[in-house]
Amino acid sequence: MIIQKSTAPRISEFDPENFSFGNMFTDHMVICEYEDGKWGEVKLMPYGPLPFTPAMMGVNYGQACFEGMKAYKDKDSQVFIFRPEKNFSRINKSASRLAMPEIPAEVFLEGLKALVDLDRDWIPYGEGNSLYIRPLIFATEEALKARISNKYMFAIVATPAKSYYSAPVSVKISDYYSRAANGGVGFAKAAGNYAASFYPTQLANEEGYEQIIWTDDSTHEYFEESGTMNVFVRINDTIYTPPTSEKILDGVTRDSFIQLANKRGIELKVEPISVKSVIEAHKNGTLKEIWGVGTAVVTTVFKAIGYQGEKLELPQLPLEESFALTLQKDLVDLQTNVAEDPFGWRVLVEKSI
Amino acid sequence: MIIQKSTAPRISEFDPENFSFGNMFTDHMVICEYEDGKWGEVKLMPYGPLPFTPAMMGVNYGQACFEGMKAYKDKDSQVFIFRPEKNFSRINKSASRLAMPEIPAEVFLEGLKALVDLDRDWIPYGEGNSLYIRPLIFATEEALKARISNKYMFAIVATPAKSYYSAPVSVKISDYYSRAANGGVGFAKAAGNYAASFYPTQLANEEGYEQIIWTDDSTHEYFEESGTMNVFVRINDTIYTPPTSEKILDGVTRDSFIQLANKRGIELKVEPISVKSVIEAHKNGTLKEIWGVGTAVVTTVFKAIGYQGEKLELPQLPLEESFALTLQKDLVDLQTNVAEDPFGWRVLVEKSI
Repeated sequence: MIIQKSTAPRISEFDPENFSFGNMFTDHMVICEYEDGKWGEVKLMPYGPLPFTPAMMGVNYGQACFEGMKAYKDKDSQVFIFRPEKNFSRINKSASRLAMPEIPAEVFLEGLKALVDLDRDWIPYGEGNSLYIRPLIFATEEALKARISNKYMFAIVATPAKSYYSAPVSVKISDYYSRAANGGVGFAKAAGNYAASFYPTQLANEEGYEQIIWTDDSTHEYFEESGTMNVFVRINDTIYTPPTSEKILDGVTRDSFIQLANKRGIELKVEPISVKSVIEAHKNGTLKEIWGVGTAVVTTVFKAIGYQGEKLELPQLPLEESFALTLQKDLVDLQTNVAEDPFGWRVLVEKSI
Repeated sequence: MIIQKSTAPRISEFDPENFSFGNMFTDHMVICEYEDGKWGEVKLMPYGPLPFTPAMMGVNYGQACFEGMKAYKDKDSQVFIFRPEKNFSRINKSASRLAMPEIPAEVFLEGLKALVDLDRDWIPYGEGNSLYIRPLIFATEEALKARISNKYMFAIVATPAKSYYSAPVSVKISDYYSRAANGGVGFAKAAGNYAASFYPTQLANEEGYEQIIWTDDSTHEYFEESGTMNVFVRINDTIYTPPTSEKILDGVTRDSFIQLANKRGIELKVEPISVKSVIEAHKNGTLKEIWGVGTAVVTTVFKAIGYQGEKLELPQLPLEESFALTLQKDLVDLQTNVAEDPFGWRVLVEKSI
């Protein structure tokens, strides 16, 4: 690995009490370039601009995919990342579906650990605070042909992130727009999936909903995801979540919630969730909770669902009654070294640079 | 418009007899940046790299769409572009669906004409030769939040293009993969649509097919597009092409073919094409031609279609019997000022820079 430390670090300008998520980047980034059929050397270097022309294939033909991860700092200043091998394996699944070269494990994992190690001072202390980490791969060849690119960049950039707390939101069950086709790229963290979701979400916002519960594009009868998150529904004391598929992202937080529910002995069924069953459960009072999970916010609890022009209110349960909030706390405590980690999910980032 | 001419033009290195399409760019490009809710001034400047970080939203969340156009030079060195208002209107439809700001007409059309005017020496003479022009819009804000970007770049780059002739190809009718969801972005020239098509196309290549005929994702019973082109089928002496929809691109070449067929009195029906009807027509000998149309190649004739493991050969008709080749010739003659233009499609690019 080539290490080139910043000669003009900005860390002294970073106020952990007062920053906005996602716009302020740490002092360094990782890059690794693919050319002539192979990945080059990993480079840890100052965060900043690189030269690209508007003919870059990544912005013309959309070969681009990413991951979202977090690093946490405990009260003793130890730094941890969470299940990094899951993100490593998933970025390669995304890359394969987009006909991009897979990243070797050492490029991904060593690059990741080196960046988090070197920029560890950017990780804010305190409950729920973290460093949000963005690995991505994108096509960099300059060419105006709709074909697979011959050049790529793998990069990792990072930004400090605040408390995971997010207020309960209202979500609209989609009856027209959809995010994934059968035989498409819905399961991949493909850049284009996000762009496609913005306009329908904007329309939902105008109707008073923060997010969309995406349904299957053929019938709109089954839940797929919610916003950019996996979705969980609790009816009586059973949790349901749709099975992953070519249309549904295999979320790391989703998988962690499933295992944490099992550990607590909460009944959880991985099976298709029909819109009809949710609406019926709301009518007969057995619908207790619906929530989304993802790396960025961990959990977003839904306070209302919109369906066929009606806004159906959901009960707001306190922590001790809520499966969503209980599992969220279990997960965050494990991630931040407040609780034991019987799963071996937490990975310590050693000081070595 | 700000005009900054190249001080190191590369035109003298350009050999119109010996170049490869898509990798060699003309001396200039157009850029225009969007910020604080408005587009800035159009800039015609030397082609080259601009500074972007890997946190650029365009490669993270895929807000990016493009157009493909051509400029032609006649024997008297007059330069023409073709139906530019169609591409202008379509890039804004794509932009809207991706929640990106629309481009004003003067930015798009004046930028386009200025670039073609200034780089007119890059347009090769000769039948079928042209300059391929790529207008595109992509998100440029640096932010790691899955939301609509606040900054964009509109750019136009160009590359010399050779003869439109392309050899007949074999195509596979898709029975698993698909390019568009109901309620999705299939009608838009969204960057992500192309990335999603590469892997299925690669698999088809391995089975001996150059392209895929995309079918509807719910049933795979109806034709949508072929490769990156609109598709036409001729049964007996009637041409069929699917109606445009939210899943099918409203192609400029497609529309031109329809109008040219009408002008010749060839029967053409815009209606759904079922896979079953095409296979039946092949069996009973009434399937005469299938072809794809698009700006880059104008027409690609299909010599075989793959369906359920069988490769069905198609007759190869000479120009005087082929509707595909006849309409292609009509179009190219019109585009290159060899024939009259009763439609008013050809637009002369005046010398003014």
